[in-house]
Amino acid sequence: MKTAAIVGIGLIGGSLALALKRLGLADRVWGVESSEQHAARALELGLVDEIVSLDKASTEARLIAVATPVDTVPTIVTKLLNKASADQVIIDVGSTKQELCELVSMHRQRGRFVATHPMWGTEHSGPEAAQKEAFAGRAVVVCERERSDADAVELVEEMYRALGMKLIYMGAEEHDLHTAYVSHISHITSFALALTVLEKEREEEHIFDLAGGGFESTVRLAKSSADTWIPILLENKYNVLDVLREHIHQLQILRRMIERDDKQGLRESMNKANTIKRILKTTSIN
Amino acid sequence: MKTAAIVGIGLIGGSLALALKRLGLADRVWGVESSEQHAARALELGLVDEIVSLDKASTEARLIAVATPVDTVPTIVTKLLNKASADQVIIDVGSTKQELCELVSMHRQRGRFVATHPMWGTEHSGPEAAQKEAFAGRAVVVCERERSDADAVELVEEMYRALGMKLIYMGAEEHDLHTAYVSHISHITSFALALTVLEKEREEEHIFDLAGGGFESTVRLAKSSADTWIPILLENKYNVLDVLREHIHQLQILRRMIERDDKQGLRESMNKANTIKRILKTTSIN
Repeated sequence: MKTAAIVGIGLIGGSLALALKRLGLADRVWGVESSEQHAARALELGLVDEIVSLDKASTEARLIAVATPVDTVPTIVTKLLNKASADQVIIDVGSTKQELCELVSMHRQRGRFVATHPMWGTEHSGPEAAQKEAFAGRAVVVCERERSDADAVELVEEMYRALGMKLIYMGAEEHDLHTAYVSHISHITSFALALTVLEKEREEEHIFDLAGGGFESTVRLAKSSADTWIPILLENKYNVLDVLREHIHQLQILRRMIERDDKQGLRESMNKANTIKRILKTTSIN
Repeated sequence: MKTAAIVGIGLIGGSLALALKRLGLADRVWGVESSEQHAARALELGLVDEIVSLDKASTEARLIAVATPVDTVPTIVTKLLNKASADQVIIDVGSTKQELCELVSMHRQRGRFVATHPMWGTEHSGPEAAQKEAFAGRAVVVCERERSDADAVELVEEMYRALGMKLIYMGAEEHDLHTAYVSHISHITSFALALTVLEKEREEEHIFDLAGGGFESTVRLAKSSADTWIPILLENKYNVLDVLREHIHQLQILRRMIERDDKQGLRESMNKANTIKRILKTTSIN
């Protein structure tokens, strides 16, 4: 395609921009960015060829990808759909889908929109976090595929396949439930773990002297950005509260077993938890 | 030294055996191993030169490192100390120290024992988990250094320095408190997270289709062995229960904020959690 536009040039938007250029999927990549600082950095880093207004993007780009915090996505997508021509395609790449899909469901141009969620990310944010080899080998979810026009779906699926991603189809509700379990909860536990240890550091200055690989791995996501994650957790509130309740319940069960020296119970729980190997093996092959 | 012996040829013992041979710190490395299967694998993998009895190791090896589950360490160390000659050195490499140091505190040969904890490990276990390039760049804790004979400390410190480790000194009580915060809790949260998602999988078959890098990183430690971790959590029970209570408390605070759409509270918490960057940067340079 001639021109693609990315709205929001952060970790995901910036990485997508790099991929579109590297793979020759777009001749030009425009960026729409409300932060002047991020816009300047995106140009410096060569993530996009030009910074343009949302208006300009909406009239001239063939594909427009919205990669802003999820609470701002429905408004931006609606504005873009309001002006979309018959050969334009609008996508989002956000971590929640139910609210968004409901809000655009009755839009007259709903067919020009494809709801997608590439399952890739890091704990870093902003244009500097953009990576050249992002996305490859990971899954991308397309939600409510049947509500999008066939040509729009085709363009988007071709793009993700060129990025080396595996397409998965889901309803928006199912998507939000699943991401609560395999992504959103991981972020909350990391934030809570960081807060737990930072709290202790006030009494015990050298508490981190022994922090090693295991700690780093479980707490890494605590570096994630509040701007990105507050909207995700609040948009997916009911699923997140559910999984969080279940997680706290599991922690309390383990806590009681430790308290009671219940070796048998701990062994059964740990052996069951060990079966996660099966999953991690699968995801790392992907 | 001529001969070193390792009691328990698993992840840590096996890696230590490999390091002693690779760095030429011992001419021969003997293994003491109660599992016949592990003993056979350790020989096949070339981790040790010979499998010997604890008795033989205790009469002939210059250095004996005990790398068995922590609930078995005090008995083995005591037996070894009972027979220790004036130039023998006994060390342990376990994750808990308070109980052990108390139990050996009045032993007539206490000076021949050095309590150590190399802060390295993976979620894998058994002789197959042993790694060639283990330990380097990590911290190793020596507990109650002043209770060990000077020559014993010197031998052990030289060994760990040759392995590329940074020596840190602590009391046994302080060690167990710190490891509860920066290691033991990470394992519990990973086990609980795995159980949470595995529980959901019973209703939602495809819950893991979207599992990506973030999930993998927070849940990786759930693959850890019950044989290793039950004794650690129970020996360090009071610290572990404390940190677990604080962690559950932090999760409940975050949960209430999400429930109440408390963006300001979430932002403050996440910004505070983000300061963990400072720590992770330090540990990854090490």
